[in-house]
Amino acid sequence: MERAKIRLCVEHPLGEGQAVPLTADQAHYLFSVMRLGLGARVALFNGRDGEWTGEVVEAAKKTGRLLCLGQAAPQLDPPDLWLLFAPIRKERTDFIVEKAAELGCAKILPVQTEFTNAQRIRQDRLQAHALEAAEQCLGTYVPEVRDLQPLAKVLQDWDPARRILWGDESRVGPAETLAGFAPGPWAILIGPEGGFSEPERARLRGCDFVTPVSLGPRILRADTAACAAITLWQSALGDWR
Amino acid sequence: MERAKIRLCVEHPLGEGQAVPLTADQAHYLFSVMRLGLGARVALFNGRDGEWTGEVVEAAKKTGRLLCLGQAAPQLDPPDLWLLFAPIRKERTDFIVEKAAELGCAKILPVQTEFTNAQRIRQDRLQAHALEAAEQCLGTYVPEVRDLQPLAKVLQDWDPARRILWGDESRVGPAETLAGFAPGPWAILIGPEGGFSEPERARLRGCDFVTPVSLGPRILRADTAACAAITLWQSALGDWR
Repeated sequence: MERAKIRLCVEHPLGEGQAVPLTADQAHYLFSVMRLGLGARVALFNGRDGEWTGEVVEAAKKTGRLLCLGQAAPQLDPPDLWLLFAPIRKERTDFIVEKAAELGCAKILPVQTEFTNAQRIRQDRLQAHALEAAEQCLGTYVPEVRDLQPLAKVLQDWDPARRILWGDESRVGPAETLAGFAPGPWAILIGPEGGFSEPERARLRGCDFVTPVSLGPRILRADTAACAAITLWQSALGDWR
Repeated sequence: MERAKIRLCVEHPLGEGQAVPLTADQAHYLFSVMRLGLGARVALFNGRDGEWTGEVVEAAKKTGRLLCLGQAAPQLDPPDLWLLFAPIRKERTDFIVEKAAELGCAKILPVQTEFTNAQRIRQDRLQAHALEAAEQCLGTYVPEVRDLQPLAKVLQDWDPARRILWGDESRVGPAETLAGFAPGPWAILIGPEGGFSEPERARLRGCDFVTPVSLGPRILRADTAACAAITLWQSALGDWR
């Protein structure tokens, strides 16, 4: 089935003959903004059932209904990779969330560090960014964006079965080959501009589940480091292999 | 020698005891914006001589002079990698140039394709972006940004000794391992949103020096694809090894 251009992430189950009711916002978007009418086709995904082609069978100002015609693409879940990052300036934080969603992270955890400026984040706005990235890039999965938590708390509660790949800005030099690393659940940790404080670095070095790695011979901004680390992990241990 | 926080890219040669005259813009930046005075230290680089610590020995409103005290970091040139990309929306074009400079490209060539919206680019603005990325990330090299050229013309004039790694958006699946590729001069080619037209694809497939590769199982925006492709190339064939 040819994939429809307009894509919509819904919460409702998707499947053969399934009717999908629209929220007021979704109806407004499809019928007022995009000016779709009865019979128009929309790509639907919900993060679980792949992409389905839906046909508009009811259209009103604040309500509407789509009917699932057939599956257009199978569900593509990311590997079990999380991204931990320290929020920085607004546009770069948005960018990190968008790129993590595109490159295939399962979960995104903003962490507060000593050199993080942010005291709080707009979790709802970042979650909407992750959703938009999936809608734009033909994705069928939207990573969950958690609320901001202090790094110390995150490390304290950490399940040591999930290893942490730490992009350590003090290791400027050849990038490690990740090919020999154990597969399984991982998280990537990227620090803020200015890096981690000395006590934080000592704490990270003391965690058995943390592996510091170099990301090449150049200093990278935090958003660039996140893209590079996810790419290296995906190609060595993830679903880019 | 400890590296100074404020960094300045100059054209003048740098070396032991070398005096470096400032332009009016540079003097304004150092003395009016950053409020430096006599004796203040500034990190200087010119793309050839590494980073030098300069001391302010003359400071006026529209002029000034620095004296090189010693080298603070050696010159770090990127490997012989070019980036060819189709300019997209302004902020994403800026972003691609910035990331190419950070990740280590030697030259940046914006190309016009059938699905490129841009008829022209602000080459001077993009060049300034590349310079700013080097200044911010402790770089000593600024990649040259060329003016916009039609892809057909670029391919026609191409030196076949430089291979092109084409991030082919139709190859959605496992990413190729670049480890077996021949070293030497390369260029990465990233298409616009909407990809390349069928005639362009046929033309690229017909070039012996072009190697199409997959960038994983997800559709990536052009800026994400550029970051991912440069990272994969750098870690397999570049100076991240």
